[in-house]
Amino acid sequence: MSKIENAENVSLFALNANQPLAQAVADQVGIPLSKCTISHFADGEISVTIDESVRGREVYVIQSISEPVNTNLMELLIMVDALRRASAKKINVVVPYYGYARQDRKARSREPITAKLVANLLTMDQIDRMIVVDLHAPQVQGFFDIPVDHLLAAPTLVKYFMDEGITDNLVIVAPDHAGVNRVRRFAELIGGAPIAIVDKRTESNREARHEQLPTTVIGEVAGKTAIIVDDIVDTGSRIANSATLLKKCGADRVFGVATHAVLSGDASQRLLDSPLEKMVVTDTIVIPEEKQTEKIEQLSVAPLLAGAINRIHNHLSIHDLFQLPEEG
Amino acid sequence: MSKIENAENVSLFALNANQPLAQAVADQVGIPLSKCTISHFADGEISVTIDESVRGREVYVIQSISEPVNTNLMELLIMVDALRRASAKKINVVVPYYGYARQDRKARSREPITAKLVANLLTMDQIDRMIVVDLHAPQVQGFFDIPVDHLLAAPTLVKYFMDEGITDNLVIVAPDHAGVNRVRRFAELIGGAPIAIVDKRTESNREARHEQLPTTVIGEVAGKTAIIVDDIVDTGSRIANSATLLKKCGADRVFGVATHAVLSGDASQRLLDSPLEKMVVTDTIVIPEEKQTEKIEQLSVAPLLAGAINRIHNHLSIHDLFQLPEEG
Amino acid sequence: MSKIENAENVSLFALNANQPLAQAVADQVGIPLSKCTISHFADGEISVTIDESVRGREVYVIQSISEPVNTNLMELLIMVDALRRASAKKINVVVPYYGYARQDRKARSREPITAKLVANLLTMDQIDRMIVVDLHAPQVQGFFDIPVDHLLAAPTLVKYFMDEGITDNLVIVAPDHAGVNRVRRFAELIGGAPIAIVDKRTESNREARHEQLPTTVIGEVAGKTAIIVDDIVDTGSRIANSATLLKKCGADRVFGVATHAVLSGDASQRLLDSPLEKMVVTDTIVIPEEKQTEKIEQLSVAPLLAGAINRIHNHLSIHDLFQLPEEG
Amino acid sequence: MSKIENAENVSLFALNANQPLAQAVADQVGIPLSKCTISHFADGEISVTIDESVRGREVYVIQSISEPVNTNLMELLIMVDALRRASAKKINVVVPYYGYARQDRKARSREPITAKLVANLLTMDQIDRMIVVDLHAPQVQGFFDIPVDHLLAAPTLVKYFMDEGITDNLVIVAPDHAGVNRVRRFAELIGGAPIAIVDKRTESNREARHEQLPTTVIGEVAGKTAIIVDDIVDTGSRIANSATLLKKCGADRVFGVATHAVLSGDASQRLLDSPLEKMVVTDTIVIPEEKQTEKIEQLSVAPLLAGAINRIHNHLSIHDLFQLPEEG
Amino acid sequence: MSKIENAENVSLFALNANQPLAQAVADQVGIPLSKCTISHFADGEISVTIDESVRGREVYVIQSISEPVNTNLMELLIMVDALRRASAKKINVVVPYYGYARQDRKARSREPITAKLVANLLTMDQIDRMIVVDLHAPQVQGFFDIPVDHLLAAPTLVKYFMDEGITDNLVIVAPDHAGVNRVRRFAELIGGAPIAIVDKRTESNREARHEQLPTTVIGEVAGKTAIIVDDIVDTGSRIANSATLLKKCGADRVFGVATHAVLSGDASQRLLDSPLEKMVVTDTIVIPEEKQTEKIEQLSVAPLLAGAINRIHNHLSIHDLFQLPEEG
Amino acid sequence: MSKIENAENVSLFALNANQPLAQAVADQVGIPLSKCTISHFADGEISVTIDESVRGREVYVIQSISEPVNTNLMELLIMVDALRRASAKKINVVVPYYGYARQDRKARSREPITAKLVANLLTMDQIDRMIVVDLHAPQVQGFFDIPVDHLLAAPTLVKYFMDEGITDNLVIVAPDHAGVNRVRRFAELIGGAPIAIVDKRTESNREARHEQLPTTVIGEVAGKTAIIVDDIVDTGSRIANSATLLKKCGADRVFGVATHAVLSGDASQRLLDSPLEKMVVTDTIVIPEEKQTEKIEQLSVAPLLAGAINRIHNHLSIHDLFQLPEEG
Repeated sequence: MSKIENAENVSLFALNANQPLAQAVADQVGIPLSKCTISHFADGEISVTIDESVRGREVYVIQSISEPVNTNLMELLIMVDALRRASAKKINVVVPYYGYARQDRKARSREPITAKLVANLLTMDQIDRMIVVDLHAPQVQGFFDIPVDHLLAAPTLVKYFMDEGITDNLVIVAPDHAGVNRVRRFAELIGGAPIAIVDKRTESNREARHEQLPTTVIGEVAGKTAIIVDDIVDTGSRIANSATLLKKCGADRVFGVATHAVLSGDASQRLLDSPLEKMVVTDTIVIPEEKQTEKIEQLSVAPLLAGAINRIHNHLSIHDLFQLPEEG
Repeated sequence: MSKIENAENVSLFALNANQPLAQAVADQVGIPLSKCTISHFADGEISVTIDESVRGREVYVIQSISEPVNTNLMELLIMVDALRRASAKKINVVVPYYGYARQDRKARSREPITAKLVANLLTMDQIDRMIVVDLHAPQVQGFFDIPVDHLLAAPTLVKYFMDEGITDNLVIVAPDHAGVNRVRRFAELIGGAPIAIVDKRTESNREARHEQLPTTVIGEVAGKTAIIVDDIVDTGSRIANSATLLKKCGADRVFGVATHAVLSGDASQRLLDSPLEKMVVTDTIVIPEEKQTEKIEQLSVAPLLAGAINRIHNHLSIHDLFQLPEEG
Repeated sequence: MSKIENAENVSLFALNANQPLAQAVADQVGIPLSKCTISHFADGEISVTIDESVRGREVYVIQSISEPVNTNLMELLIMVDALRRASAKKINVVVPYYGYARQDRKARSREPITAKLVANLLTMDQIDRMIVVDLHAPQVQGFFDIPVDHLLAAPTLVKYFMDEGITDNLVIVAPDHAGVNRVRRFAELIGGAPIAIVDKRTESNREARHEQLPTTVIGEVAGKTAIIVDDIVDTGSRIANSATLLKKCGADRVFGVATHAVLSGDASQRLLDSPLEKMVVTDTIVIPEEKQTEKIEQLSVAPLLAGAINRIHNHLSIHDLFQLPEEG
Repeated sequence: MSKIENAENVSLFALNANQPLAQAVADQVGIPLSKCTISHFADGEISVTIDESVRGREVYVIQSISEPVNTNLMELLIMVDALRRASAKKINVVVPYYGYARQDRKARSREPITAKLVANLLTMDQIDRMIVVDLHAPQVQGFFDIPVDHLLAAPTLVKYFMDEGITDNLVIVAPDHAGVNRVRRFAELIGGAPIAIVDKRTESNREARHEQLPTTVIGEVAGKTAIIVDDIVDTGSRIANSATLLKKCGADRVFGVATHAVLSGDASQRLLDSPLEKMVVTDTIVIPEEKQTEKIEQLSVAPLLAGAINRIHNHLSIHDLFQLPEEG
Repeated sequence: MSKIENAENVSLFALNANQPLAQAVADQVGIPLSKCTISHFADGEISVTIDESVRGREVYVIQSISEPVNTNLMELLIMVDALRRASAKKINVVVPYYGYARQDRKARSREPITAKLVANLLTMDQIDRMIVVDLHAPQVQGFFDIPVDHLLAAPTLVKYFMDEGITDNLVIVAPDHAGVNRVRRFAELIGGAPIAIVDKRTESNREARHEQLPTTVIGEVAGKTAIIVDDIVDTGSRIANSATLLKKCGADRVFGVATHAVLSGDASQRLLDSPLEKMVVTDTIVIPEEKQTEKIEQLSVAPLLAGAINRIHNHLSIHDLFQLPEEG
Repeated sequence: MSKIENAENVSLFALNANQPLAQAVADQVGIPLSKCTISHFADGEISVTIDESVRGREVYVIQSISEPVNTNLMELLIMVDALRRASAKKINVVVPYYGYARQDRKARSREPITAKLVANLLTMDQIDRMIVVDLHAPQVQGFFDIPVDHLLAAPTLVKYFMDEGITDNLVIVAPDHAGVNRVRRFAELIGGAPIAIVDKRTESNREARHEQLPTTVIGEVAGKTAIIVDDIVDTGSRIANSATLLKKCGADRVFGVATHAVLSGDASQRLLDSPLEKMVVTDTIVIPEEKQTEKIEQLSVAPLLAGAINRIHNHLSIHDLFQLPEEG
């Protein structure tokens, strides 16, 4: 447990994106959620009412920038505006899922860098600190000049496989070229497994001059237990297709892992239909009931967030949160 | 007509909020809308693609911050980010309807000032100029430190009544206490009519200590043609109730006027059911087909916006746009 | 009384605009004014000397931006510069009268928005908080992004009439179109009185096309006790003329109320010559002896300011300051 | 003459501090002053009206920050606010006399640095360029991050002495310790004269521990023509006392030179009563008629300013303005 | 050739980091380098002298942030300060090699993000545009909010192999996990080659709990011509070791490719001693004579930079610069 | 001694420029230096590792901007970036020697103002406070808007002469025109000595029109003990040449004093060869062993800095640090 110490001037607020996670964090740190009402006027404008004084308080606002992504972002920006004007002492923003994170560079001419725009919007709003989980690219930390506590779900996810006894004859698989670093770190954390890469030609912004090459797997997977590791599972196609390919290449068992369960459209069904044994995700995003299936295993990051809030509030290093959780 | 002169380096972009108005403006200024695609990924994130070079160009982006208000605002912010990074020379933002404008002050403790937040977001994004129509409070201009061209729909709206011959025995009515200035100016523009005020106690933030007083009309309305003038018609209740009250007080005919046709929920039906003869609005906001009724008369601000763009681009005073349009 | 608690690191400074009010506030909060000398060199430049260490202290600077308005504003800006460089911890600026507040929008082409400029100057100077009384328009709060505590003199003013037993058969009168909201709130606070409006055509920036209409009163005033409520009494013409008109329309008694007693030029004499029974104002601005007459009743906002400072310093809600003061 | 070329989009505005100099500059550059009205309301607030469109124009605003210094500074800040909101293309601020320049450092604990504050106020107001004459300390240029064109009056002042034939047997005298650099440069420009320094102990911020030493002259002055050179003549005491001392030390003739004629209080009389033969100043500050005496010789910087404006507008180096004006 | 059109107001400056490349760019665009002297005082402080007027000019400053990296960065910052104060119209900064780019995220607790710091320093200095080649991570573009033109050396590098006829039986190899995306794009550009990855466990910031695993190659390389592609060759160990490993795994021929030839310490010798056939680099960084060997093939990015400057100056799309150069 | 009180949340860091002074300060305040490693990668980039948590701590970073000046400045900027991102509460930067301070104005066209650039870089990096010793010009304080504690070495330097009994028949000499103020204050502090000035024509930026005049001394020096006082001794030429000249003019003994011992190139030898009896400096800059001679007397500012840190941390006035140190 992570009961927060010296909590007398701490206020915890949950906006609309992920109230169950916020409640779980509140339970862990041992203080109730403060009262606020975030509703919508008839015309769709957001209405914020803070129902307790926040003068001089250290405030933590918990909000994922998940679907409806623009509304959730605006809820956060408006809440921060209200808190600042209401004389909060420090405004700490806890964003379990940082939406728009994949738009972090100009991949083509005349593209926006929306992940930076979001950082600018929050910075302009004068937040004091960001607490995030598994950013799509770690460089997004540099989009901010305020302190960003970047938490990692990997220990939580690895512990699941250890607890399930899935630790032998593993291969950790990157479903695309960009995630190889993440996969290598996961492989080390789980005990030094080899890695493989699903090699799919990414869309090019030049005129195609040669045919599409078939997607292949680079690395040994035959006879192994493959764990595909990604940060986000969105439409599910990339992981589902990777699973099919791995099976075709002789993998014995195939698991999927992703921190953020965006699960757009038919993603849940697509994963259900795939050869995946389990799709292990966290609760940074609420999974609506109709998208929950028996294949999806949802682990909670509430202990991670609660641990971070406790350490941050008491000016302690968060270093130990990057380790595997202790037995118990 | 307002064909723009010296238009060789002007680009006009329309985002998703109000494409018909943007097209009408483009037709008026005589240059085509530039190509861009503003779509949504499966997870709800906005995707912006600008399909023409904007290097060194004077860009006008037309977007109302109307429902879905947060999405339309984010579309605008992301588009501006893309334009800036794509080396546009000047980014002029045309916002026919500035949403969140009514949240322009702290009416109660711990409220946000979202109209200022929106101004800050746009300013942070480094726009060069705002062009807006009928801000809820003129003080919102001061929320910006860049040039804001604040256009008035009143000449367009007044001209309707003149064209219809509705100019005699008028009383111009404010449906609440805050709009009396607007009503006085409208009354002068239409030729010096008297005014009246619907006096309704506004909600108070203190414990009520006396009963609700009945809503009354201050000023003479019996036997007159009453024109209720507001800037926004949202749920329609205020105007519809005012119309009923005016009829009860002996008004002969009752018209409604509002620049911005938000028309939330059942507003259209409510107006249709009211004693209003006509509800005259503009096209700053698209009225979906199912909300259009025979009572609603929609006038276009496209000539106003086109005239402003032409004058702004050629560094001419926009002063004459505040006059009644000429006969023709 | 509002003796401030935990005051060991609080410093209170009074600049030149309103030393009596500052002294009264200091007496109320129970700590002496800190020593500083704000004088002028032979060439008119302001000289600031702070005679006590302010390192690490929570400073409150009391200064109205009243006449000489530019000098008083500069005194404030220079003092804040000195305090910041002298390592004050927090700089809270108490501005009982915020001058230039009426220039809060562009009413005509090529006008400044000086109320925003003043906000920008203070913000640039890195103040931490504003405490103000009765802003001309509440939107001016949005000219700041720091916390603004906007205090209301209405409870103090209403209590005067209650204490004097002037509570029956009232009508609360707005002397122009812009102040109807303020009048409606005053009417509610005093127990639910009806309202009336002095309807005077405001100056228009277009070529006049019809003759000046006579000023009239909208609403019932005959036989009633009329209280004209404004935020500022400047030249006094508006209130004096309104009083004359109300008398002509049959009002029995006429009182004037305004928070800020600017009293430019012959204002005092004009009010004295008017049919007003009393002109009730506060002490946000010093009234020089030669302008004091028996008609002017000056109430002190010192308890209001002291109450606010005490609550702000101890991170308490200031909500109860918006209520009528308790009996005592 | 300095008739400005390519002047079609240039606007020149004069505020209230120094209209004769502004008019002289306008005459030199060959374009009329644009129309604006800077007046004061009854309560002392400044009212700015710009009577011509400035959209897209390169604007030069001429205003000295001379007495009344706070009012003149605010006039400038408000005018810039109005120009920016009115869509001026570039705002160039011409400040012949930069008031508050002597408050350019913390000489004692808890002092402001008002010269920096003034720079910050102008920067916050988004001016594009400063044009100034003889800053008290050249480091004040570094208080700005925008381009500052720092013009020198020395060539104009030196030419006076050359034209008068006062070039032999000179000694150039610094009236205090801080101005020795200025005096050395003046001495070189006038042809290589020796220098002397009036050595007066400056006020110390520590408890005095030894008696006041008498003021002395360091350097040879007996039998020479002494020219005391300063940047500002304020109360005139320093220059008058220096003249008396120089006479006592055997100087044959004594002249005074100062760019900025602040002339506070009895300065004019003090100079008239002194052994100075002439006090040579410029017109960066208007000398009111009652302060003009036969001892004061006022040279115009209008050609210097006009030359600078012409070069700046046409993107030419201003380097040659630092030379002695040519014969003719 | 890329002779720049409409070049009359363009100035090109070269600082000390890479004068040969700057001269080559100047030759390509057809205008001479402008004169400036960047030298060092005896105490190591940088002295900047700009020997030509830059008023109103579009300036391009060419400077790599290569060793001595801090000095070269400061040269650039100081030059920009001088240019801005000297009234340059636009300051375009051409940084062929952006040093500190690898410090683009917090890999461990309490690390700086120096790549963002560098971006902040340049942004604070008010540059108008960045032109860079092959950023270590494309997210660094998002560290800026001004336009960044991110040029790619890949077409230049690929063309070398095509010109040399090295196009058959290729495998493109990533020497670490982070560069797989870059390798995949290179493989596509060269005609659709397969890829392989050198899998080396990166240093972990947790206590090691298992032994170091041997470095392996993932993917097929036996009998193939391997091209190792990286963005930076620094100490050369990674590429040299990869080459040895590839040979051991049966690769037939091995080439190295890197845009930026940092070549620290013994890198040149290390590459010479390795089984690499050629190490192909560009001239974004000057290779001192003593580090040049017959194995190093240096291609020029001058045509790429010249092409970009020409297009940027004339507001043309730079899109075609991302294609393979045409035959000629 | 200056043992710091309430030191439980204070961290002291020393970067590479002056570790002995930092250690001496740490010894004085009685807390150990915190652990950090500032090293350089093979390619010259700086690597910062902070080895202790700094969350919520009041940090003091000690770093002179001395040679290698650019590297030392970047070390400081990077360290501050790391501290900020690591959630330090306050970042106080102690800069005993502020390099680039002499580039504090535009002496010629198109020069940078590098002292302001350095201030901007530090400000951009969000430091909370500067503590500096003997700035070249006190106006540099105004380059910052944060608190700057400007300490003076004069009491320490004067005390040396008092302790040595060198107090009679003194003349304090300025080696150039700019330092006369500093010399006058030193003369007062040492008991009221007369002053003299070495009058050397400074380099002019105009075409020379008259021959170089010989350097002379203004003021009486014959038979006196001359103390040349400067802030920086760089190449040593100015002080050595002044000493020679003073001897030639009959001075009995000659001492040199300078706070900052830059000692570029052959400075030490030059001073050794000069007629100076002693060159008294402080330890704001480390003097490498090979530059130490018996003529150089180095006094420590560690007690001064420690006293300042103690007072700053405990919010006490630093006023008494400007006095002569007490006997003892």
